[in-house]
Amino acid sequence: MAEYVLHCMAQSGHSYKVALMLELCGADWEPSWVDFFNGETRSEKFRAELNAMGEVPVLDHNGRLLTQSAVIMDYLAEIFGKFGWSDDDERREILRWTIFDNQKLSGMIGPLRFLRAIARTGETDVTKFLEGRARGALAILNNHLATRAFATGAKLTTADFSLCSYLYYDGEYGIDLSEYENIQNWLERIKAQQGWKHPYDLMPGHPLPDAA
Amino acid sequence: MAEYVLHCMAQSGHSYKVALMLELCGADWEPSWVDFFNGETRSEKFRAELNAMGEVPVLDHNGRLLTQSAVIMDYLAEIFGKFGWSDDDERREILRWTIFDNQKLSGMIGPLRFLRAIARTGETDVTKFLEGRARGALAILNNHLATRAFATGAKLTTADFSLCSYLYYDGEYGIDLSEYENIQNWLERIKAQQGWKHPYDLMPGHPLPDAA
Repeated sequence: MAEYVLHCMAQSGHSYKVALMLELCGADWEPSWVDFFNGETRSEKFRAELNAMGEVPVLDHNGRLLTQSAVIMDYLAEIFGKFGWSDDDERREILRWTIFDNQKLSGMIGPLRFLRAIARTGETDVTKFLEGRARGALAILNNHLATRAFATGAKLTTADFSLCSYLYYDGEYGIDLSEYENIQNWLERIKAQQGWKHPYDLMPGHPLPDAA
Repeated sequence: MAEYVLHCMAQSGHSYKVALMLELCGADWEPSWVDFFNGETRSEKFRAELNAMGEVPVLDHNGRLLTQSAVIMDYLAEIFGKFGWSDDDERREILRWTIFDNQKLSGMIGPLRFLRAIARTGETDVTKFLEGRARGALAILNNHLATRAFATGAKLTTADFSLCSYLYYDGEYGIDLSEYENIQNWLERIKAQQGWKHPYDLMPGHPLPDAA
């Protein structure tokens, strides 16, 4: 077994944050597929044994379990000495963009993409609501990236892994990024990192089997 | 002028997180009212001078500006030596519940309460969506609090300030907490802290003026 086992599935942007970081750190890791689409994360067994919050990712590091992408990335930054912070001000700047992402970017684009590409509800007041909120967050991030290479400045950090994750699922969330030029350029900069892979090439479970 | 000036308004649960902490720390602080309901947070001036993310709270500490409730609370925990963490594991456990709150609890109850109590849209598919998500988060928190006094264990921390905030706006978000008994008891424990005040007694701007 690898040193790090990431419980995840290919469609999870939150899992991708951690998978990408593990890959870029050159960690000895492997994914363990979670059957989200048949309710595994919401099962009593999953909640009891892996994560009471009923969600992926969960990282198993030699038997020690960690949950929440931001928490896992902070832990990995400490171990690998990469993509983290060197003082409390830098740590808080990473935190500022990580929370922004979880609440306003991934927090809105994640459910939007689920409704549009997976549940396929068609356009509803809910998709409109989520798209409006997501676009507000994209505009803020796009402005912010006008004067910086990465979310917190010149250095790639865990805040970037958090913010970029769902945006790589092109064509699934129904927002064309061409009007957010700084975001597009930033996504290319992350893609250019040695070892970068698309979520569907990094985690198992894609494509979904056809509905029976 | 006080040492700490908190740009906020009474209806902002995210501002309340910080206001409550300042009060319980016995800080020399004062609120500075932000006219959110007439668009102040979304104005160019506000974005340029106070917060590019276009939101409250913003803390001014002797001219140094900090934004995002989680970031501000982390900063205050360092200064006051209260409600924070003593090692990295504890710091990450606080982070885990703070992110959970921002994404899944405040992140859903905040907009739900806005639509129900302030925008007064009536019941829509969007309020149903947000209520469903908020109830999922409340159930997780309620289970978690079955065996602990506070979010991360025996000690009151900034994670509690984050999680509790919107829940004190009783009757405004349209979810009856009586089915979440552990949450109710935990809210009472926080209320019992020396110096606790309701958001409407801690920040200006309540009640709203009648619409013209």
